Amino acid sequence: MPLLEFFLEAGNLKRLPRAGWLLRGVPSPESIADHSFRTALITMLLADELKARGVEIDVERAVRIALIHDLTEARVTDIPLTAQYYLDKGKAEKKAAMELFIRTPNPREYFRLWREYEDGLSLEGRLVKFADKLEMLVQALEYEKTGFRDLDEFWGALDSLRESEFYEHFRELVEELAGLRKQNRLR
Amino acid sequence: MPLLEFFLEAGNLKRLPRAGWLLRGVPSPESIADHSFRTALITMLLADELKARGVEIDVERAVRIALIHDLTEARVTDIPLTAQYYLDKGKAEKKAAMELFIRTPNPREYFRLWREYEDGLSLEGRLVKFADKLEMLVQALEYEKTGFRDLDEFWGALDSLRESEFYEHFRELVEELAGLRKQNRLR
Amino acid sequence: MPLLEFFLEAGNLKRLPRAGWLLRGVPSPESIADHSFRTALITMLLADELKARGVEIDVERAVRIALIHDLTEARVTDIPLTAQYYLDKGKAEKKAAMELFIRTPNPREYFRLWREYEDGLSLEGRLVKFADKLEMLVQALEYEKTGFRDLDEFWGALDSLRESEFYEHFRELVEELAGLRKQNRLR
Amino acid sequence: MPLLEFFLEAGNLKRLPRAGWLLRGVPSPESIADHSFRTALITMLLADELKARGVEIDVERAVRIALIHDLTEARVTDIPLTAQYYLDKGKAEKKAAMELFIRTPNPREYFRLWREYEDGLSLEGRLVKFADKLEMLVQALEYEKTGFRDLDEFWGALDSLRESEFYEHFRELVEELAGLRKQNRLR
Amino acid sequence: MPLLEFFLEAGNLKRLPRAGWLLRGVPSPESIADHSFRTALITMLLADELKARGVEIDVERAVRIALIHDLTEARVTDIPLTAQYYLDKGKAEKKAAMELFIRTPNPREYFRLWREYEDGLSLEGRLVKFADKLEMLVQALEYEKTGFRDLDEFWGALDSLRESEFYEHFRELVEELAGLRKQNRLR
Amino acid sequence: MPLLEFFLEAGNLKRLPRAGWLLRGVPSPESIADHSFRTALITMLLADELKARGVEIDVERAVRIALIHDLTEARVTDIPLTAQYYLDKGKAEKKAAMELFIRTPNPREYFRLWREYEDGLSLEGRLVKFADKLEMLVQALEYEKTGFRDLDEFWGALDSLRESEFYEHFRELVEELAGLRKQNRLR
Repeated sequence: MPLLEFFLEAGNLKRLPRAGWLLRGVPSPESIADHSFRTALITMLLADELKARGVEIDVERAVRIALIHDLTEARVTDIPLTAQYYLDKGKAEKKAAMELFIRTPNPREYFRLWREYEDGLSLEGRLVKFADKLEMLVQALEYEKTGFRDLDEFWGALDSLRESEFYEHFRELVEELAGLRKQNRLR
Repeated sequence: MPLLEFFLEAGNLKRLPRAGWLLRGVPSPESIADHSFRTALITMLLADELKARGVEIDVERAVRIALIHDLTEARVTDIPLTAQYYLDKGKAEKKAAMELFIRTPNPREYFRLWREYEDGLSLEGRLVKFADKLEMLVQALEYEKTGFRDLDEFWGALDSLRESEFYEHFRELVEELAGLRKQNRLR
Repeated sequence: MPLLEFFLEAGNLKRLPRAGWLLRGVPSPESIADHSFRTALITMLLADELKARGVEIDVERAVRIALIHDLTEARVTDIPLTAQYYLDKGKAEKKAAMELFIRTPNPREYFRLWREYEDGLSLEGRLVKFADKLEMLVQALEYEKTGFRDLDEFWGALDSLRESEFYEHFRELVEELAGLRKQNRLR
Repeated sequence: MPLLEFFLEAGNLKRLPRAGWLLRGVPSPESIADHSFRTALITMLLADELKARGVEIDVERAVRIALIHDLTEARVTDIPLTAQYYLDKGKAEKKAAMELFIRTPNPREYFRLWREYEDGLSLEGRLVKFADKLEMLVQALEYEKTGFRDLDEFWGALDSLRESEFYEHFRELVEELAGLRKQNRLR
Repeated sequence: MPLLEFFLEAGNLKRLPRAGWLLRGVPSPESIADHSFRTALITMLLADELKARGVEIDVERAVRIALIHDLTEARVTDIPLTAQYYLDKGKAEKKAAMELFIRTPNPREYFRLWREYEDGLSLEGRLVKFADKLEMLVQALEYEKTGFRDLDEFWGALDSLRESEFYEHFRELVEELAGLRKQNRLR
Repeated sequence: MPLLEFFLEAGNLKRLPRAGWLLRGVPSPESIADHSFRTALITMLLADELKARGVEIDVERAVRIALIHDLTEARVTDIPLTAQYYLDKGKAEKKAAMELFIRTPNPREYFRLWREYEDGLSLEGRLVKFADKLEMLVQALEYEKTGFRDLDEFWGALDSLRESEFYEHFRELVEELAGLRKQNRLR
């Protein structure tokens, strides 16, 4: 049955570590599923907040996108930056997305959702991009609090949060995160 | 800021292993976040399917519930069955849920969602219960395929899937899972 | 046979990580059995020392208590502080202790020993409490030497060591530990 | 202070895996401290039982021996059988024991206890040898229940349990273990 | 200094798990460096054997190739089969090889060696391909002996060993491996 | 067949962690095979460099030695310094080397190669000793960059690099490594 196969394949995200942390020496780092979970949670709460502030946003759509935003990695795995320089990750994921979502009852719709994230085609898709980066930085902060170092490069993502259309709404959140990081490094 | 604290606390779900597998000797088993991720994914697809079959269900609501259904474990941790015999897990989680969701912009609503799952108060809450058990069995199947044994007790959950109000809709899915399990044990 | 079942159940302590370290991000932290082992060793040596100083103490009794002081966690698991706020750990462990020690040849006596620890009913029981905290701090020191951070909260236990009736005998030991910690943080 | 150094050095037993399992491919196997803990627990209960049956045995002495029986491995590490063929483990441990126990308040006595185990000089020392092997087999059973294979060579220790002077007292226990093993292999 | 950077980059191979095992659920599987080590060892011994049988082969060349055959994965990571379907691994590795070997004192020569493996341009390069597959199967056998299952797909590589030009020389070795596997599955 | 047994035995190097890191608390440290791989790679590049500078050196010989320099640890395991004080590691490894290499087609030659390393009998053997220490320091640097501490004792090996006959050729490399270390500690 396609649906069971789809669920089994999604299981790869539990088994695959996030490659960025691995390359920086973090032992037994989080899985892609770990990251996807908190990204979806963050997306839901940020979307709620935006809506409360009068922004027209489809919360359900945003959460749906978040849940599938890294699903292609079940086949393509987590290609880190050093590898993306040599591999056309975008093209690969697009093809994988098409073939993967065929196992869902509504392939076209899921592929459309995935593209809204990948190509930033909708407000909801772009919010997931924002949440995806935010999640990574919250995790970087946690690893640094635990004592891990050499994670500076990840913090470059702060800039893209600050340049985002959502920054005006979540300035306080982003800057508090940046502040905790600074504080942590001074200890 | 309450929201950042909320996200940081949710990070506990990445660090906490699912205790049931641990007690059965599975080394480095999945995290609670790993499980929550696939439960939310399963919920979304099952809810879509139910809707397509004309069942009146609020997909957004179901997915929201799935994302927070185990969030109290960020404080209470994953209390396995052997411990639940001695501890009032339900009461503890109810209190934790109240205090945890205060950090969200809409505490009442999130607590309400959580109770729909916990107490089976809505169709959506009960669907997440169904998805939660299904996810566990898909994982059990995967561990058994890898070679792990001594997971029989988990398969008792098959009965509750079969007795569920959703079984009529997902009979094929449930029985295919049961069939794969039987097949795997014969190898 | 009850004895074999008892030994098998005690095996859970090897499989269960100490939750406090886990929540602070320490990867693959020590097991409850790891902790119990060194607590028993420390208890034996401290009891010897007390006896040599003329304190009337039953060394055998102290060591017996140390060996079983965390045995209820084989069923109840290691409930961390965040969870104890919501769960009646004491009551749960008392019930678990009663049912667990039934598998030993002398249930009443073992339950009595366990309560001497839990409720501080005897000098020996209180010494194990002292050793239990001391062991945790020695481990915290070791994790901090390895480079792990964010373990400050554990060091609050220093105060209870200093307020203990045994402090006068082990002042040098406790303060050397505190000194090494300070030194380590300055590096 | 020698005592703190002694406790810190004993911490090595938490960090060192038992080499036998490692070589057989068990991932993240138990530590030496894990094993020492359950060996001490088993020793205590077997000694209690012997005493109840009228055997003249010093339970405290037996438990003391169990707690230190593998302590030399904090320096010498766990030398597996393949290595013992090339290394004089016995001599090394004797020397290490002498130098290690100097840090205790009563070096002579602790060295004496250790030799009672190592050289089987007392009933108590021999009981710990029995408990040490029994513990290993209980662990082997647990690993096999989890699904691990290739542990046949460890079960050779059953013979030495059967030839032991304690077998008459613990025949039922040993044979139940042997029976569970057989049962497990038939599944 | 380019050489130190080269050595540091090669360190990625220690941190990166072999993705094939990971996806099959093997916990904490071998690293790419683990695999590279034994592949080089196997290559050396097979090349020695070929030479002894009168085959004209440059042993040094073969071992050199073996040591660098997976080095591009320090940047590109271990792209498993499911991902290779979507990504042009060959092209990526070729580019990475060119840029990576610039850090060695003799970039042209190392790139040439690497291509002899990748494109099977020399007897030595093809021998490393043979050794690479053989190593994987020896590892598969070891995982299966440990109890892991679901590794059938890897054994397809037996066919390519049997069709290889080296099979006539190592028939006994290959068939013994195949025999041990069959034996292991019957247990 | 002896060759397959030899390859299987070499697999122990993948399963055995390097004990020095383990004792310092590094979780899931590199394997002996991980270390052997990079040592062989370093040896190859340093030998190339020496040859380019007009030093008469047999590169093939050097690489062969590097690949087998730690092979005896497949039987003897990685005996750390604390244990070497009590065990005659040199004698044990010599005997193990003799018995291990019997499984190769050319036992005398392999034993001879191994002794060139062990006893520093040839320029090639001494170069592997240099590479072996260098590799350890590169790894120490990486662990320290990751945030691990308490690795000072390993850096004593810098002195032996500086006193080596190869220092004049690799001064820049060694001092750059030393510089990066200093820099890392100041962060």
